[in-house]
Order: sequence, then C-alpha cells, then structure tokens
Amino acid sequence: MRTFIFTLLLLSSFIAFSQSKDRKIEFPDIPGYQTLVCDLHQHTAFSDGSVWPDIRIQEAVFDGVDVIALTEHLEYQPHVDDIPHPDRNRSYELAKDYAKDKDLIIIHGAEITRSMPPGHCNAIFINDANKLLMDDPMAVFREAKNQGAFVFWNHPNWTRQKPDGAAELTDMHRELISENLLHGIEVVNEHSYSDEALEIALGNNLTIMATSDIHGLIDWAYDIPNGGHRPVTLVFANERSEKAIKDGLTNGRTVAWHNNTLIGKEEYLKPLIQSSIRIKSAAYMDDTQVAEVIIENVSDADLIMQNQSPYRFHLNTDLVTLKGHEQTTLLVKTKEIKNNFDLSFIVLNAYTNTTEHPELKLSIEVK
Amino acid sequence: MRTFIFTLLLLSSFIAFSQSKDRKIEFPDIPGYQTLVCDLHQHTAFSDGSVWPDIRIQEAVFDGVDVIALTEHLEYQPHVDDIPHPDRNRSYELAKDYAKDKDLIIIHGAEITRSMPPGHCNAIFINDANKLLMDDPMAVFREAKNQGAFVFWNHPNWTRQKPDGAAELTDMHRELISENLLHGIEVVNEHSYSDEALEIALGNNLTIMATSDIHGLIDWAYDIPNGGHRPVTLVFANERSEKAIKDGLTNGRTVAWHNNTLIGKEEYLKPLIQSSIRIKSAAYMDDTQVAEVIIENVSDADLIMQNQSPYRFHLNTDLVTLKGHEQTTLLVKTKEIKNNFDLSFIVLNAYTNTTEHPELKLSIEVK
Amino acid sequence: MRTFIFTLLLLSSFIAFSQSKDRKIEFPDIPGYQTLVCDLHQHTAFSDGSVWPDIRIQEAVFDGVDVIALTEHLEYQPHVDDIPHPDRNRSYELAKDYAKDKDLIIIHGAEITRSMPPGHCNAIFINDANKLLMDDPMAVFREAKNQGAFVFWNHPNWTRQKPDGAAELTDMHRELISENLLHGIEVVNEHSYSDEALEIALGNNLTIMATSDIHGLIDWAYDIPNGGHRPVTLVFANERSEKAIKDGLTNGRTVAWHNNTLIGKEEYLKPLIQSSIRIKSAAYMDDTQVAEVIIENVSDADLIMQNQSPYRFHLNTDLVTLKGHEQTTLLVKTKEIKNNFDLSFIVLNAYTNTTEHPELKLSIEVK
Amino acid sequence: MRTFIFTLLLLSSFIAFSQSKDRKIEFPDIPGYQTLVCDLHQHTAFSDGSVWPDIRIQEAVFDGVDVIALTEHLEYQPHVDDIPHPDRNRSYELAKDYAKDKDLIIIHGAEITRSMPPGHCNAIFINDANKLLMDDPMAVFREAKNQGAFVFWNHPNWTRQKPDGAAELTDMHRELISENLLHGIEVVNEHSYSDEALEIALGNNLTIMATSDIHGLIDWAYDIPNGGHRPVTLVFANERSEKAIKDGLTNGRTVAWHNNTLIGKEEYLKPLIQSSIRIKSAAYMDDTQVAEVIIENVSDADLIMQNQSPYRFHLNTDLVTLKGHEQTTLLVKTKEIKNNFDLSFIVLNAYTNTTEHPELKLSIEVK
Repeated sequence: MRTFIFTLLLLSSFIAFSQSKDRKIEFPDIPGYQTLVCDLHQHTAFSDGSVWPDIRIQEAVFDGVDVIALTEHLEYQPHVDDIPHPDRNRSYELAKDYAKDKDLIIIHGAEITRSMPPGHCNAIFINDANKLLMDDPMAVFREAKNQGAFVFWNHPNWTRQKPDGAAELTDMHRELISENLLHGIEVVNEHSYSDEALEIALGNNLTIMATSDIHGLIDWAYDIPNGGHRPVTLVFANERSEKAIKDGLTNGRTVAWHNNTLIGKEEYLKPLIQSSIRIKSAAYMDDTQVAEVIIENVSDADLIMQNQSPYRFHLNTDLVTLKGHEQTTLLVKTKEIKNNFDLSFIVLNAYTNTTEHPELKLSIEVK
Repeated sequence: MRTFIFTLLLLSSFIAFSQSKDRKIEFPDIPGYQTLVCDLHQHTAFSDGSVWPDIRIQEAVFDGVDVIALTEHLEYQPHVDDIPHPDRNRSYELAKDYAKDKDLIIIHGAEITRSMPPGHCNAIFINDANKLLMDDPMAVFREAKNQGAFVFWNHPNWTRQKPDGAAELTDMHRELISENLLHGIEVVNEHSYSDEALEIALGNNLTIMATSDIHGLIDWAYDIPNGGHRPVTLVFANERSEKAIKDGLTNGRTVAWHNNTLIGKEEYLKPLIQSSIRIKSAAYMDDTQVAEVIIENVSDADLIMQNQSPYRFHLNTDLVTLKGHEQTTLLVKTKEIKNNFDLSFIVLNAYTNTTEHPELKLSIEVK
Repeated sequence: MRTFIFTLLLLSSFIAFSQSKDRKIEFPDIPGYQTLVCDLHQHTAFSDGSVWPDIRIQEAVFDGVDVIALTEHLEYQPHVDDIPHPDRNRSYELAKDYAKDKDLIIIHGAEITRSMPPGHCNAIFINDANKLLMDDPMAVFREAKNQGAFVFWNHPNWTRQKPDGAAELTDMHRELISENLLHGIEVVNEHSYSDEALEIALGNNLTIMATSDIHGLIDWAYDIPNGGHRPVTLVFANERSEKAIKDGLTNGRTVAWHNNTLIGKEEYLKPLIQSSIRIKSAAYMDDTQVAEVIIENVSDADLIMQNQSPYRFHLNTDLVTLKGHEQTTLLVKTKEIKNNFDLSFIVLNAYTNTTEHPELKLSIEVK
Repeated sequence: MRTFIFTLLLLSSFIAFSQSKDRKIEFPDIPGYQTLVCDLHQHTAFSDGSVWPDIRIQEAVFDGVDVIALTEHLEYQPHVDDIPHPDRNRSYELAKDYAKDKDLIIIHGAEITRSMPPGHCNAIFINDANKLLMDDPMAVFREAKNQGAFVFWNHPNWTRQKPDGAAELTDMHRELISENLLHGIEVVNEHSYSDEALEIALGNNLTIMATSDIHGLIDWAYDIPNGGHRPVTLVFANERSEKAIKDGLTNGRTVAWHNNTLIGKEEYLKPLIQSSIRIKSAAYMDDTQVAEVIIENVSDADLIMQNQSPYRFHLNTDLVTLKGHEQTTLLVKTKEIKNNFDLSFIVLNAYTNTTEHPELKLSIEVK
C-alpha cells in the first residue's frame, strides 16, 4: 500500500545510497570452487527474533551474503500468542517470496531447541519443519536425516547450558555423530569463539561453522557503521546452487570468518589466503640489492603475518599486516640481486587448529 | 532464553558502544516549556511494518526520542494471516512493556486508514483501538473524540491518494475540523514535505506535525551512519508527561524538524532558535573597531542565516551558517567601539510559512 | 642527497597515498573558456613565510591549483640576516625550477609593501622584482606597468592598516586606477571577506580576486583534513598559458572561491554555476503529476538555492542545497503532466554584489 | 607584520581547531621515570630541509612531542647560496627562540655527514656546531665528546651507503664505540626499520633510537590525517629536563615507537607495556565460571598479543588486540570460580630482539 510506491521510488535514492558497498563481505574464489558467503543461523519474529523475514533478506543483500537460513526455534515460540501460525515452514516461505527477485539463496531450516544434551542444533536443507515437532530428541535428528538435512550443533559453549563455557561432547553427541546425524558445529556463534568447539570439529570430522545467530538487527549487533561484520561460514561450492552448498557443507569445505579471524581446515584455509594475495610488481630499487614487492590483498581480512622467509625487510619487522583491499609495499633485503625468490609467512589470525596457522608462500619473479 | 543472557552481558559492551551519542536528537528547552522529541507515526509487524515493537523502543532510545506512538493501520493488516490477533491494542501493550525500564513515553495510537477523503489519519491518546473498527468514517472520528484523542491527518500530499502531490482540504475535512474532530496535519511525512499542508495547518489552526511513518528500519531509511535523522515533532510541554504532551499538541505548541529544516508557528519557532544560540564572548580585537563575537549553537540544526544587522562582517558575507553543536566566530565591523550592539538575522532553513522565516536577534554586550 | 633516493622511491607510495584526490579544487570549464584555479598571493622563507618554495609547489599540486605566484614582500624581509640574497627574483626562480616537471604554471610576482595609502599590492607578470625596489610608491607602480604587470590591492580591509576593517579608496588609489596602474582587488584574503572591497571592485572595474596569502602551511591554515580549501581566484582563460591567464585577469574574467562562497561578475558567475549543474534524468513518477528530476553538481561548491520556479517540491521546502560532486533528486509538483518545464533558483552562496545573487535556470525535458 | 595580528586572533580559532588532540603521541610514565617523547633528528632549510625552524616547533606541539633536535648537515648545505649564514648554531638558536613560550625542549644538535664509514651521525647536546667543522672524521667525534655530546649513528641501513640495506659495523665504528665516541644507533629512521641495527645496538650496548629524519612536512610524510605518526624515541627520564634526557639516552633508557611497533630493551619495554594496561573491572558472569575482565590500554599502541595463560577465552582466539586508548572485554574461561588468577601474553608488536617479545602479566582480582 503506502510503502509500495515509496519503496519503488525512493528506496533507490535514499536507502541504497546509505548502504555503501563497503559493508559487503568479500573473499575470492579458490581453485576449483566458488567461495559463497553463508549465514545459516538466524531468527525472526516467527520464533524469538525481533524482525519480519524481509529485513533478513535486506540485511543479507546489503552485507553481500550469498546464502541464508532462517532457523526458528521449533520448541521456543515466545511470540506464539501473537503469531500462532501452525505451519513451522512459514518463515521460510515468506523469506523465499521476499527474496525471489534477489541474487540470494534461501535454505530451509529450523532450530531443534533442547536442553543439554544435545543442546541446540540447526537442521538445514529440510523439507518440512512441522515433522520435526516431536518429543524424543533422537527421533528429531532421525527425521531430519530422513529429510536429507545437514545438521550442526549451535553454540556448544553457551554458558546457559555449559556454565564454564567449554564445549564438551556428551555420549548423546557421540551417538549422533556415529549415526551420521550431526555434521557440523558452530566454532563461532554471534560474538563468541570456542577453542573446544574447534577441537571437537577437527577430532570428529564435523564441519566448521560460524553464524550470526541474529535476533535483533545486524547493523547494531555487529557495529556495521564502524566497519564490523557478522560471522559467516565461507562455503566452497562447485556452483552457486543449493545442492552445491549442501555438498560443500557435507564435505567440510568451509572457513569461518569472524572478527578479523579465519578458521578452517588447512586444505581450504591455505588456498583461500593464497587466492587473497596477488603480487602486483617486484623490482630492485636502483643501485641496491633491496627488492620492492607490491602485494595486493583482495579479501576483507587484515592478514597479520609473521615472516618466515630467509630474508629480512627494510620497512618492517617480522610482523607484517596486509590490510584487506589494500596494497602493501615490502622492501626485501635479498643481499644479492636475484631473478626470483620465495617469501613465506605464517598467518597469525588464521587458524587450522587452536594454536596452529597456515603458511603463505609467495614466489616472487623479479621483472 | 538465549538472547536473555547475551542481552544482559553483551549488549552493554557491543551495541551501546556502536550507537554513539551523535545520533541523539537534541534541542534546548524554551522559556516556560520542556522541548520533547516526538515521533508519533510508526508501524510494526502488527500492521505493515517489518519489525517487532521492541525494535521501535530501541531505535527511539538510540535517537534520543522522548515520545513515540505505534500507529498500526486499523483497516490494513497485510500480516493478518500470521498475526491474527483480534486485539488492536496489542502493539501498544507490547511496546509499553518493552519500554517499562526506559525513559521513554509510549502514546496509545492507531491509524484510521481510508481512501480520500479523508485519507489516512492518526488518532493518539486513545483508550481502545478496537472500538475504532467501524465502517462510517465520520463515526470513527467521533469515537476517537469520545476517547479523548488528538487526531491528525497523515501525508495529505501522498501521491497514491492525491496524484499531483498537492494537499487539499475536502468538504469532509472541513467538517471534521469544524466539529473539532481533526486537530493536526503532517507537514512532513517520511522524506516528503508539503507547502500546501503547511498552508492548511496555518489557515485552519491545525497542529504542525512531522513523523517518520517508519515501516522498515530507522537506520536505513534516514542514513543514520552518515548523520541523517528521522523527522520528528518537537512538542513544547510544561512537564514530561503524557498529559502535558497532549496539552502541547492540542494547543499547537510544536515545531517540525526534518532534514535540517525547522517549521513551526513563529511564537514557538522563534524562542526555539533563540534558545539554541548562546553568546560565549564578545570583545574588540586589539587596536580595531572590529568585535569578535563567539556564538554557540546548542541545537542539532545547522542554522543558515542571512544578516539583517546594520553591520557587516570581516570573515563572512551576509550568509552565515551556525553549525549545530559548534561555536562560530563572527568578526563584526561596528565602525566605532560600542559597549553593546544588536545583530539580527533571518533564519533561512526555519519556516513560519512556506516562504517566511523567523528572525534571530542577538544583543551583544562587549566585555 | 639522502632525500633524493627516498623521494624517488618512497614518496610515491607514502605521501601520494595520503593526499587523496578529495582535496583537489574542481570547477568545470565555461563556454568559451577554461577555468583555471589560481592562488596568486603566497609567501616563502624569502620574505616572511615559513617554508622553502618547493613546499608551495607540492601544496599546489595536492590542491589541484593550476597557477601560483610567490609574492615576497619587497620591503619586508624579516629573514634577511639568514637569507641576504640580493636578487629579489630568487624565490620565483627556485619555484620555476621545482615546478619544471609539474603541470603547474608559476607567475613571477612581488608584493609592494607600503603603509596606507596605498597599503600592500601585488604586481604579477613582472620581469624583474629588483627594479621595483624604489622609494616613491607611485614610481613603483609605474615600473610595474612598464614591466607589463597586472597589479592588485591586497587585503584592503586589513585592520592593521584600516582599524575598522572597511576597505576604502583613497585619492592615491583613485589616481592609480585612473592611470591604469591598479587592476584588481582582493575581495577575499586568507580567512577574511570584504563587502566594501567587492563594492570597490564593481564600482571601479577592478578584477575580483581571492588569495590564500599563505605564510605557514596550507594544510593547517585551511583545515584540509576536514574538507577545507584555500581561497582561490578562478580565472577564465582561452588556453592554459601565462598569456591567457593575464588576459583573463586584465579583462576581469574571474570568480573568487572562498569558504563555500562564490563571488564574481554575473557574466562569469552565472555560466560557472550553469556549467556546474547537469540534468541526469527527468520522468514523472507512475500515476502522478510529480516529476522526478535528478541533478548532478560537478563543482566543489555546495550550492544553497532558493526556489523561484512556478512549481513546488515534494521533498523540499524552497531552500534546496545541491551538494558538490553529488546527485540530488528533486520531486517537482507540476500539477499536470508536461513535456518540458523550467525551474529557476537564486543561488544564495553566490554573489554578484554584496547582496545580489545569480539565477540558475534549468530547462527540464521529460523523457 | 601582517601575520602578526592574524596569528594572534585567528590561529586560535582556525588552526588549533583543525589539529585535534588525536594526533598527540601518548604513552604513560613508568615506575621511577617520566616517559618523554623525543624526535632527535630533523632538518630545516638551514641544511636540506624545506621549512623554516618555526614549522618544526609547531609540528612538535601538535604531535605532543616533548623534545626535539634540529640536526642540520654540517657538510651538506644545498641552500648555501641562499642561506650563507656562517654560524652553524643558527638553526638551533632560531628554534630556541620560537619555542620559548612552548612546553617543548630544544636540544642543540648537528649531523656529521660523511661517506661510509662512518656514514652519518648525529651529535646532540653540543655547545658549538661550528667547532665540528673539520676534515678528519675521528677528530669530529672527539670534539663532540669534548662538548659532552651524545652521538648516534643515523640510518646505518641506508641503501645509498649500504646497497644491501643490512647495517654492518666497520672497524671505524668499533673504534668509535671502544673510545666511547658513539652511544646510540637508529633502529628506525623515517619509514625504515633495521633488524641488523637492532642487533648492533644490543650487541654493543648502543642506545636504541627512532627518528623522523624529517625534511618535508610531518603531516604529509606520516599521513597524520589518517592516524599515522612519526617515529619517535621514548626516553625514560627522572625529570623533564635536558640533563635528565641526556642521562636517559646515555644509559640506554629508551623505546623506539614506529608504525605501531615498540622496540627496546626488556627492562624498559616491559614496564612501558605494563603501565599501559589497566584492569578496570573483573567479575564472573552470572551463573557461570566465565570471568568478564575489562582492560584499558592508555597508550597509543594497538597491542597485538598472543595468549600464554592457562585459560582460554570465550570471545577470542589466542590472538587478542588491545586497541590504543580503548577498553577491551576479555571473557576468561577459568573453569572454576577463583578469587584471583593470572593472565599472561606475549606482545607480538613489541620487540626486545629481532624475534623476541616482552611478556605482559596481569594479576586479576575478582571483585
């Protein structure tokens, strides 16, 4: 009605203007895969969130998110007096409709909301959320599997369910994993990060996940005006499709991106960092044996790196930060003129384990 | 549940941090009255808005708004399939509850949503929105009056109801006014301003109103990160109470604040500007007849002023902008040393009519 | 020596990076002329300034200034104990040399520095500053004329020479003008503006000038990091050459640009504003008689305009600001559908006299 | 003259306004010593710099620098044709005079400018620069010692004198050191840092120095508008006096501050970091064993730290950045409720050697 015409005519000039491209999350593709930005744990008024589904669509578009899932609590419906809708697929269906003219993939999901164990888990790629409404927790997971779901454990470090904040597998979780009913785990949820969750992921071959678990507004929760970003799971998919995303998740092809930190298995984290870095030029400064190497970082991450090369730098100590979407000049003291040489760094804000980091290797061709 | 503990522990450090005091709307009190910042036309998911009422409370707190009304459409309920709540007071009651520990006044309101005439009108300070659900438009207004409502005409310039955008009284409006059933009119609605609405207000003694009519998010619609602000009605009240606000509105004691523009009757606009300006110091520069006058503007408005004084300036042409919350230095060429002198300006971005402006007079005491 | 190699290798990556293109002064050409940005009154250590001439070259390059003159005081040499150079052309020669690989024109000038009358005057386009060192003030002006100089009166409002700050012609000035020895006058000097100087310019056909008169650093004096700019004279020249600039100055083809204010004769100010404004699109909003007109301002000036059109606006009062280097949307209420219509505005921060403003006329073709 | 009155009246409102306190370099005192910010290698037009000495005073005041030395090249005087002043103390004397009403200490210095060896060295705390004008390099250092100078080796990594950029002691340097004629070494000069210089400093007990070696403008060279800072030597002095600064330098009580990097001996670097960090509060989150510790960093350095504590964090990986002049919240998973506990970190952007870092230990008292 009223919003209709104003949306058509004024959103373009007012709102779009204010949401610059700076807030878009950007990482390069890696060899063999597209890098898709996914936020697969979100709430709306259809469970305990504070917005209608259309806001989630708009936030995702502004943030350059490629894939979202609205995962309303199945068992926790604080707005039920106002929204007594019996169909638990409703939030998904509204989102699908709002997104139909956007370049945004909506995954059908729901949050299985239980006390610990098993705590909260998201089932995504489901067919019918209503069928997940049953008492026995194990039965719910089996039904999810039956629907072909990918299931992940939410905030295993949540202090309301684990007061020491240290995520820990229970027998029920081990059973879920052994029955192939649990496939991923949130290493990052909202503002929290969990070393123990990462250890559980790596020790049990669960997919590493990061989600916003947004209830209110992304802009407020993640300080968007000052350059903040929501946590997302980067999924490496062989095409931009729901099927390919599920394949990526199922096969653990993810990197978590949270608060200038990247977390993932080395086989995906290393190519992601490698693809983020491009050598723009390399040449010796006149009458010196010092090579000027200009490096571009095409990702959002400010990479904090420790030099492991056999060479020292003329402008930097061994700690070098390559700012996201900027070029950095390294002056490399090779001691003699070389046609090519190698640099290597460990990337301190990228993690393949709780204390281990991927290496970045750069082969420099001097022109 | 989950949000509960995170809200308690993390909102204080994360969200409050990101919402600096810069977005608070600030205007000084005027002699005899407090200046209350009111946004009395807003929507939530309970009609055609996209948020739950708690978001409207939080936005108001961030924006320094003192008074809000959620004015859901009585006759337009696009979310009725999902929110079939039969009680049209529900949005107000939820808002009251969410605001109970905030320094924020919630006014009970509803939007009478009719084709033209009379178009859309808000009734605020009502007792029971349900009783306003009736067919005959005139009957609705009489019921509103019966409940003691203050009623104002929304976006009389709306092109969906008036394709030329020129607000125009109909016989029905004249009847409503003559029966004292219509008391105010939106001169500003969302991004639009209406010269004709201002003329109708002044010609019929209707209260001048400005409202956000927000459906989505204030942050997006009004470009908050870049210094934008929502339109509000400044109400001059003899105390911070619902009763005093109603008294202020009923007696037309308002100024509309929109997009660096102030609009109001001279008797309120002039003292508002006068109260916004403070002389910090005045002294002649050594060995000259040029007085240095330092002026502080304690309001949010950048006042764009044309000099009407008998004196010229040493740093400025006759167009002087006093930026909001800043000090400005005027060097005044008085031609001879004076113990005191007067400056006067017309304030071009303040309007007492479509083309008339209030005067700012400053009596300068030289120290 | 040391600076040599660092300049060559590091200035490009460090300094140039920090001086974004945002500080460049930009105004469009006008029909028949190029618009050249000129700052023709500057000092270095060779009189009472605090920098070596190379800094003035670098500042000009950063600011997008096309033409500068270093105008050292002939009679005031506070650094003479340290810089006893007998050749008063030295500053110019150094500047010429520093600028030889820059796209920057250096004009040979000097400041005739006398008590009032005549006060201070700059002679530019001179051949030999040494020949201007003589006692009799009238003789200096005649020698300047002999060298083909363009001569302008500096800061006629300077309170050290005119304690009331009100510029005023003396008999000596009238004589200089009548003998064609004085050709221009600073209406703007550093931070000061003078109504009286503008009246003298217009009443005596003197060229309107604005200069920085910089002694310290441009970055500090004009708050460059926060978007400030130095005062400059825009000269309309038929080519980018010293000869054409002199022709432009001699024929009064200038506009002063100072602190978001433009000052000039109507015949140059009007086409400058007209050339700054471009209609990007014009179309009626669906099912309305309201035309959406998108206007681009390609100049640095935020144009503060008062509507004089027969039409009113749907988003604005009659005061409209077209921000520099931005697009502004006007919604025009034409009351009926038209194939074309005219808008007109007076531009309040542009002056053709102390209180008169040029008109901006826009012919809108609706597509 | 002209500048006189404008300086008095307008600098306060214009220039000071534009130079916010944000550019001031700020580090806390350490136990037993004041922390003084020193930039002891600078040039003006009196050698190969591009500014008059007053600009160096103003830059220092804006940057919160406590102590400066103007160290003109004794043997390199490219402006000698223009500034033939025979007294090599002139630059110092002018600076002393310009600084007389500022809270800024001027140290008398000069740059001994020789080919390698010994390369360039600064002698500061001298009495008479003229007496340093002699051919034999060793004789110059002896004369400096005779005057009581503190002498340091400038940019030993300079590629014009050491094309591989790797600082290296020669026999002459060893002789200077053994005769106590050389006391310090620049580990940081302008934008360059040298691992080898740091090794030489530590291996030969030379004082660690960082200097701007500024020739042009600090604002441009160090990108002040975007938060950059010049390199400085923090000297730990027992009072704010020339004598105490010399004592601090002679006894090696320094930390170099460069491009968000701190470099110094552990005995000074560790207390500097320790003094920079303050625990604001510590308390367990309700019903958890997770302690919320709020930490304030009162220094300019963004401290990049790796967790070495026995505890893990709820919001962070083991890499934690404590931003300068901000508060950071750490949620510490102590596994059980404790009355007090210790945290420890290594600070990766602080160096006690080319690859070694100081430890920060925090004893947390839970309230």
